Amino acid sequence: MTLGIDIGASKTLGILLDDGEIIKTEKGRTDSENTLDFILEFAKNLAADNKPEAVGLSVAGVVDASGSKVLAVGNLYSLPGLPVQERLEEAFKAPVYMDNDGACFIWAEFLQGAAQSAKSAVGLTLGTGVGGGYVLECNGKPFLFHGAHGSNFEVGHTIIKAGGAKCGCGQKGCLEAYASSHFFMRQAGISAKTASKRAREGDRRAKKLYTYYGHWLGIGIANFINLLDPEVIVIGGGIASAWDLFMPQAKKEIKKHVLSPASRKPKIKRAQLGYRAPAMGAALLSRS
Amino acid sequence: MTLGIDIGASKTLGILLDDGEIIKTEKGRTDSENTLDFILEFAKNLAADNKPEAVGLSVAGVVDASGSKVLAVGNLYSLPGLPVQERLEEAFKAPVYMDNDGACFIWAEFLQGAAQSAKSAVGLTLGTGVGGGYVLECNGKPFLFHGAHGSNFEVGHTIIKAGGAKCGCGQKGCLEAYASSHFFMRQAGISAKTASKRAREGDRRAKKLYTYYGHWLGIGIANFINLLDPEVIVIGGGIASAWDLFMPQAKKEIKKHVLSPASRKPKIKRAQLGYRAPAMGAALLSRS
Repeated sequence: MTLGIDIGASKTLGILLDDGEIIKTEKGRTDSENTLDFILEFAKNLAADNKPEAVGLSVAGVVDASGSKVLAVGNLYSLPGLPVQERLEEAFKAPVYMDNDGACFIWAEFLQGAAQSAKSAVGLTLGTGVGGGYVLECNGKPFLFHGAHGSNFEVGHTIIKAGGAKCGCGQKGCLEAYASSHFFMRQAGISAKTASKRAREGDRRAKKLYTYYGHWLGIGIANFINLLDPEVIVIGGGIASAWDLFMPQAKKEIKKHVLSPASRKPKIKRAQLGYRAPAMGAALLSRS
Repeated sequence: MTLGIDIGASKTLGILLDDGEIIKTEKGRTDSENTLDFILEFAKNLAADNKPEAVGLSVAGVVDASGSKVLAVGNLYSLPGLPVQERLEEAFKAPVYMDNDGACFIWAEFLQGAAQSAKSAVGLTLGTGVGGGYVLECNGKPFLFHGAHGSNFEVGHTIIKAGGAKCGCGQKGCLEAYASSHFFMRQAGISAKTASKRAREGDRRAKKLYTYYGHWLGIGIANFINLLDPEVIVIGGGIASAWDLFMPQAKKEIKKHVLSPASRKPKIKRAQLGYRAPAMGAALLSRS
């Protein structure tokens, strides 16, 4: 039995996993002032009388190479530097793993979701940000990818249009500025959800907005296909629900920009595990 | 003893490697009409009376996932579809490996050059094109990276400025359009070599050209650091000899665009094995 906790800036989700099955789910409002105490209490409540063999944390940020420290976060500013791992290990007398939420997302989808039986998979989450993760089978075993200094497939901050639109990170031209919900807000002052509602009602401007969105997303996807050519690409996050509105254009763009003829029609799948994927991936980190 | 042959559009280089040591080198002019016969003859001459245990080929193109077919090439158009592997295997009664030249380059530098003892390395070659390769130690063994359909770190064709300068591949805004010798030709009508000569003589315009070059190269490097965060980056190719003219600006750009604080100062090294690196890597492919 393992615990998985997905700590977001406003919400926290915890699950208790037994042999791959979710046996308990718990939601909470993240306390961004007393973050350390909050996480400890949340984990204890979640575990209740159970003794988890491992605890996993999914965080919206960069975790160091040893998986024990949060180096930078998207938006939960109280997290970096806190001794979360040490304190949870003390409390549970069990190993504690920590990883980026994009990594946890694809790890869960690779082991139990849309990318099962693939030899390599990139995960993309499309929402207020663009997150990502990468898994590959390598020398016979699945490997949840991490870089030498902990960075983990920060695809949202790769530059696709140098000098282009400003991203939340302060740079210009990041994929995230074009493939997150900010794109709809910047272009039309509406949310991605409103845009998809209007598009489905026949609004031509809203449809066109999603076609442009697909154009930019396709360039971002073509870029990592040219580098890594994964067997499967799994896409989740709120914007994925408008799949039919952006995917045809994204696929055209991929076909156009991918160099190798054999890699131009990748398998792109919708995520299967829903909003619980990062927490599930966290609960499965002991297998990484 | 193994053979390694680097087949370029105009020149072919072969080496005979014995326990990592080069014991023979041979150069030839690539016959792009009778390419298959040329390669067979070249290999036999190179081997002479020796019986190589393996033969490796380095080609400027995309090799399929099984490593046996050339799918697409940069400029040796007669190569795709030829039964090179089968014929060499018949001739030598030994396994024949084939890989992209960027992959062979970094494989050699990883095993015997600038990236020795690293756990992961990206190789970049800067010349008339921008080539690349990626090696990582994974589940305890070095792994020469290939994608699911054979693509291998085609970094030159990742888009850094959508809608920007036209690349030789037909697309717009590829890194190769900004970080190859075409950049100098397009911007100033001179070769990279002439530009570096002038810059060293004090020509301010030529110096500025290299600063811009560093700017674009840095964006391209920051992009793959955000995704893969390699321990070492090895840079080779003709333009690398102007290192001091472009690297300071490239490093500034990397620092600016890499998201994780821990990954902003990567180890960037000059290639050590010179023009023979792809042939050496090819001769070492049996270890991949």
